[in-house]
Amino acid sequence: MQLFYTPDITDSPIYYLSEEESKHCIRVLRLQLADHVNLIDGLGGLYEAEIIDAHPKKVALKLLSLQSEFEKRNHYLHIAVAPTKNIERLEWFLEKATEIGIDEISLLNCARSERKEAKAERLNKIITSAIKQSLKAYHPQLNEITPFQKLVTQPFNGQKFIAHCEPGHKLQLKDAIKPNGNYLILIGPEGDFTPKEIEDALQNGFEPITLGNSRLRTETAALEACFEVNFLNR
Amino acid sequence: MQLFYTPDITDSPIYYLSEEESKHCIRVLRLQLADHVNLIDGLGGLYEAEIIDAHPKKVALKLLSLQSEFEKRNHYLHIAVAPTKNIERLEWFLEKATEIGIDEISLLNCARSERKEAKAERLNKIITSAIKQSLKAYHPQLNEITPFQKLVTQPFNGQKFIAHCEPGHKLQLKDAIKPNGNYLILIGPEGDFTPKEIEDALQNGFEPITLGNSRLRTETAALEACFEVNFLNR
Repeated sequence: MQLFYTPDITDSPIYYLSEEESKHCIRVLRLQLADHVNLIDGLGGLYEAEIIDAHPKKVALKLLSLQSEFEKRNHYLHIAVAPTKNIERLEWFLEKATEIGIDEISLLNCARSERKEAKAERLNKIITSAIKQSLKAYHPQLNEITPFQKLVTQPFNGQKFIAHCEPGHKLQLKDAIKPNGNYLILIGPEGDFTPKEIEDALQNGFEPITLGNSRLRTETAALEACFEVNFLNR
Repeated sequence: MQLFYTPDITDSPIYYLSEEESKHCIRVLRLQLADHVNLIDGLGGLYEAEIIDAHPKKVALKLLSLQSEFEKRNHYLHIAVAPTKNIERLEWFLEKATEIGIDEISLLNCARSERKEAKAERLNKIITSAIKQSLKAYHPQLNEITPFQKLVTQPFNGQKFIAHCEPGHKLQLKDAIKPNGNYLILIGPEGDFTPKEIEDALQNGFEPITLGNSRLRTETAALEACFEVNFLNR
């Protein structure tokens, strides 16, 4: 069934698609009066609705049913990653992490970051199309670029990890995470975190982890962490 | 240290870079006489070598040391996947799977395949740059497009799995795979395998598996399988 992302949906029994979505619905998808569609609000709500006015600029939908907390995960994952020099690598991480399961992403500004800014609007569009494609009722939250120091010192109610390539004692996630928990994982830039950043993280309660023996690119390491957390909570 | 892929290396103590690699070595990387470089042969061999002639068209390298079976994995993974309609999605799967760890990839021609052909040469270049980037001494083998029927009936000495979205009993890889084994995993096209293809696979000894509850794109499912096999063999 066709799916629309409707974050502005209310408890009114009728919902009107935006002009752009209406055009897409009628002109592109060629949906008609009485056709059924799905709506996701990005907060866990999955609706079934019926087209009661196939107006090409203002489609009217009658809400038929609502499933709350649709496929709610049993854990909360927040990954903070330094944006890659090649923005496409960050973009596909966002798409894949959304498919596999993530709740919050922060973009980290580190000492060795190759990229200091990224357009949240475009990145959010990628996340939105990924939730539609993979039928996720929760829209992951994307945070603006955050200085490393600010992120490691801000409060987080859960387990905190930092993945880095410097020598020293490290845990494997499978030995470290408590199931059904909240997790914040830091993934560094192409040149890795600096020893000072690692030290600051450890002093702020982050546990050092390894993501295996392979030399992974930044976006691959971030996806590996996302995969491991979801896998270990299955 | 700079790394060169040298599949044609022999046991001769001197190795000459190709004209293209020589130019890259001297003109781009600006390496000089007596500089050291790494060579990988794609068969597990990691060499250290010294530049004894910095000729811009024919660099001569003296082989100093060889590590055989460098970071040899404790298992063998062969993933057979239907090429995606958008070839870039297959390309990034190849890059990521190479980083994470894979031995052999077959491109499947299925009843519902969106794409019936793919240029192995270009795909191999992506694999080669990924092994160089992630310092892998083994070059994954990429097989040409193979008809589904041929692949499921050819002999394979190990566990065989098919990941599909049809209803029915399925195992999780973590409950199914025997550690340190050989694994062949089938991943279907955008429209999934047909019921007949699934039936044929089961009749040929493939076990049906699930890769979790998320609706994954073809290339994401293939990477998820690669993640799981490597993770479960850590």
